[in-house]
Amino acid sequence: MATASDAPALLARHGETVAGYLRSLLKRYPEAPPRLMEAVEYSLMAGGKRLRPALVLETSAACGGRATEVGTTNPSALAAAGAIELIHTFSLVHDDLPAMDDDDLRRGRPTSHKVFGEAMAILAGDAMVAMAFEVIAADAAPGVAATLVAELASATGPRGMIGGQVVDIASEGKATTLAQLQALHRMKTGALLVTSCRMGAIAAGAPRATLDAVTNYARHLGLAFQIIDDLLDVTSTPEQLGKATRKDAARGKTTYPGLIGVDASREEAKRQLAAAMDSVGGLDARADGLRKLARFVVDRTT
Amino acid sequence: MATASDAPALLARHGETVAGYLRSLLKRYPEAPPRLMEAVEYSLMAGGKRLRPALVLETSAACGGRATEVGTTNPSALAAAGAIELIHTFSLVHDDLPAMDDDDLRRGRPTSHKVFGEAMAILAGDAMVAMAFEVIAADAAPGVAATLVAELASATGPRGMIGGQVVDIASEGKATTLAQLQALHRMKTGALLVTSCRMGAIAAGAPRATLDAVTNYARHLGLAFQIIDDLLDVTSTPEQLGKATRKDAARGKTTYPGLIGVDASREEAKRQLAAAMDSVGGLDARADGLRKLARFVVDRTT
Repeated sequence: MATASDAPALLARHGETVAGYLRSLLKRYPEAPPRLMEAVEYSLMAGGKRLRPALVLETSAACGGRATEVGTTNPSALAAAGAIELIHTFSLVHDDLPAMDDDDLRRGRPTSHKVFGEAMAILAGDAMVAMAFEVIAADAAPGVAATLVAELASATGPRGMIGGQVVDIASEGKATTLAQLQALHRMKTGALLVTSCRMGAIAAGAPRATLDAVTNYARHLGLAFQIIDDLLDVTSTPEQLGKATRKDAARGKTTYPGLIGVDASREEAKRQLAAAMDSVGGLDARADGLRKLARFVVDRTT
Repeated sequence: MATASDAPALLARHGETVAGYLRSLLKRYPEAPPRLMEAVEYSLMAGGKRLRPALVLETSAACGGRATEVGTTNPSALAAAGAIELIHTFSLVHDDLPAMDDDDLRRGRPTSHKVFGEAMAILAGDAMVAMAFEVIAADAAPGVAATLVAELASATGPRGMIGGQVVDIASEGKATTLAQLQALHRMKTGALLVTSCRMGAIAAGAPRATLDAVTNYARHLGLAFQIIDDLLDVTSTPEQLGKATRKDAARGKTTYPGLIGVDASREEAKRQLAAAMDSVGGLDARADGLRKLARFVVDRTT
């Protein structure tokens, strides 16, 4: 498909916007201990695909945005994009800790606690959570800020990502059904992807029907994303992924390929992609970016 | 003074209000992993003085509140009170971790990581931060919610409590001046106490001059609080405090009594109390609760 090849360019453009914004956020804390901000910056500016902020910005654009001029970014969407990347990065830093997944490598570099020590990695993660909510409160339009905070906090907390991490740890080495695996993924990775799209729609002042459409899109995208993640863990090398691979099996974690096999997993990812496309079928050409990103998620090799 | 004896009753009353509210918050997560909510509840409902939420509620009352009926609590102040206790409790759970202060005892009971394991203690702390911002977004009046989030996030993050914890760890075993010690305390414990009072005033719709007055009150209260904390660490037993004592010296931490002696520290605490009283001297009898709490902070023995 001709459009699929545009996703990397789209991600690169949004990634640059978000990186610039995050860099400006780091400058808002001149009184903070320099070593803490170094640790935050180390993880926050380590690259990565910036998929979640791209979803915020593309959903905002798909919903018509509210940019004051053509080409400018909706400030509420930009705040939400920065916030979701802060939350995502915090989760990586804490997940990598010795008490959790005990990982040495992340995005091709030593993990935060390997460089800054365990205490600083915990505190840098904590700091990023506070910064995420601060940036929304400071930069989003007053009419949507509280709603965006509620969305992000719910997706982050006990019923979202953090709850999912608890379920993930608890289910290591235990027999897991496909339904349980899907429930785990909906919390652990799905919640942040769904809230990325919802925040973009809310920032753009989208009507309820559009909000529902992008929510469904993101749910299917989230499942597709996780299936591909499980597949890449089996089929890639650490050099390709920039992090350890075959960790799932080593830890006794149930995965899609482990449960239904590699080929059926690929099929299921494609079904989820089709359902995601279908969800935004009623939106106009402004949603083409969301379509490109969905295809990218399923076609990606890292 | 006759009124000083009322502070325990005041704290008990606010403590009950806040505990009831926190209990209702815990019920908002029926989909969350039960073990995670157990860990959150274990730390959140372990008692403690609930000083910070009491400051929120008393400042709101001092500023006239906006209760719809006499005797009801301003809902924005109650949300802020619950949120500040969640943030304070999160900070205790993470500070107690083996990678940080490595404490076994908190409020007379084993610390969270001793009961639930290190991974769960990290995640329970993380969850409480998300819950704090969620409760403000959900329960505070739309006109003040974003401002309350901004206040709380700023006081929690790199320029506030978390920044202070980084400075605290970094200054262990190093010579520290009185000015450096005060700067550390302003961040580590002062920021949350100041934001407690500021959130109460904001929830009540206080004018700028009143907000400034309670901000100054809280700054002096914060310093008095920390001086007394340092003194109690030297002069109490673990049985009295419900946590380990004489930790400061063992860790090479600079303290007020260590820098200027026990007697001069007591004098300084009294001077800070007088300055706190002076700051709210222009407020009417509705600020008597704040006066009682300030005296209590300096007279307390645990």
